Amino acid sequence: VTAAGSARWWVDGVASVGVPADDRGLAYGDGVFETMAVVGGHVRLGAFHLERLQHSCARLGIPLDETVVVREVRERAAALGHGVIKLILTRGSGPRGYASPRDARPRRMLTAIPREPAFAALSDVPIAVRVCATPISINPVLAGIKHLNRLDQVLARSEWDDRAVADGLMLDDQGNVVCATAANVFAVLEDDVLVTPAVDRAGVAGVMRRAVLGLAESCGFAVRVGALPLPELCRARGILLSSSLTGLRDVAVLGDEQVPVSACGDRLRMALARSFEVTR
Amino acid sequence: VTAAGSARWWVDGVASVGVPADDRGLAYGDGVFETMAVVGGHVRLGAFHLERLQHSCARLGIPLDETVVVREVRERAAALGHGVIKLILTRGSGPRGYASPRDARPRRMLTAIPREPAFAALSDVPIAVRVCATPISINPVLAGIKHLNRLDQVLARSEWDDRAVADGLMLDDQGNVVCATAANVFAVLEDDVLVTPAVDRAGVAGVMRRAVLGLAESCGFAVRVGALPLPELCRARGILLSSSLTGLRDVAVLGDEQVPVSACGDRLRMALARSFEVTR
Repeated sequence: VTAAGSARWWVDGVASVGVPADDRGLAYGDGVFETMAVVGGHVRLGAFHLERLQHSCARLGIPLDETVVVREVRERAAALGHGVIKLILTRGSGPRGYASPRDARPRRMLTAIPREPAFAALSDVPIAVRVCATPISINPVLAGIKHLNRLDQVLARSEWDDRAVADGLMLDDQGNVVCATAANVFAVLEDDVLVTPAVDRAGVAGVMRRAVLGLAESCGFAVRVGALPLPELCRARGILLSSSLTGLRDVAVLGDEQVPVSACGDRLRMALARSFEVTR
Repeated sequence: VTAAGSARWWVDGVASVGVPADDRGLAYGDGVFETMAVVGGHVRLGAFHLERLQHSCARLGIPLDETVVVREVRERAAALGHGVIKLILTRGSGPRGYASPRDARPRRMLTAIPREPAFAALSDVPIAVRVCATPISINPVLAGIKHLNRLDQVLARSEWDDRAVADGLMLDDQGNVVCATAANVFAVLEDDVLVTPAVDRAGVAGVMRRAVLGLAESCGFAVRVGALPLPELCRARGILLSSSLTGLRDVAVLGDEQVPVSACGDRLRMALARSFEVTR
């Protein structure tokens, strides 16, 4: 039995606290990760997490032993009940130098973090967010995937330490909003147009973002995926943040400004909740 | 005694092979590194490595215990004799999430890699390089420092596997040459103008680059640090690659094209060799 709040690690399936110092995940961030909400012993949006993992590994050329990963995640989720599972998959150990070793054996690290059941609920409590000064890193080859190069998010997150601020928006080099440090962003415009930034130059293609995009039209929204300049976001009828762990949250405060909370969040959350029941 | 070719690791000064799985260097690439040539028991350009480490840590907000790091590197260099010391400094362990823990204790990993003495010599054998398709990541806040987010270099380096190609040039989003995967780039233009790309949006400010810039004027060069579009590089009288480990090398082949090898490389290498004798 693990105490609430503490985290255990398994490395390649073996209970462990350590990773070899020559792992390329440490040396270069040469790997990917997934952070998954576990509800009632099951990974929420598990199929989307797996598909993104497949896509991320393919993009980086890291072989994925899908059967082993899926089995391990399922077993740990069942044992955990409610909480968070984080999976890291790196290219494995290698000698110094950027060249990937031909015989690299990917290494996987998994941690299960117990939480209150409410954690993974779909919260309808509006949040406050800020705009970060740290820009997001631009690289079309890395955009969208959930790789381990996350220093821009770390620096952006270090800009505040007020617990009342839930997250911070990150802009690209042209002043477009790309995402929050740990969430994707949606703007609700006039006539129920739902806009979310493209993640083809920067940002992560979140699994909850994908879930929202998948059911938005059936909820009566027109969807636009593309550039979202900050001034356009500020004029929106509503702003929403999506993440695998925290669901879809309304933004009530952006920086020093109040933001209207539309009914659209409720509409989408109800549809999400129904889809979770079905897909689980 | 360590066998040639094998690497030992020390974690926080203790001989070890493992790093805790919750290290933020692994989770997010939240740390920095230095790769240092060791010649005759001393780190070459040690003062420049230390200053870059200080600067990189300051930029990321990672406290640096300089006394401990310098002492450890000196001791390991003396024991190694000839070879490479790689030092990784991360923000240390932390719970899940981008927010840096207030009580984070930085962790340092050091490895000493024995090599032939000739390895760290200033080679005057011209090399072949290519132009990589993988663009370099753009982020002014991260540019210049030697942090652990190096997936763009890893992917660029994975584009070739021909041992005859020594390195690959990486371009930014505007087609400017920024650096090679593991070296900085210099172009020699007419009238002994030495150009190297600025590293204020992308790239690493190499210690050998700094050494070359420091003595270029005394060697009769006019120096320009700024944009270097690929076509301008291709028209250059000479192309040079600098790195802490391999010194300053002439480029004789760029992609499918022969590149003229100027006498400028020899001039700069002689000045570098003299400065190493003095500064050691």
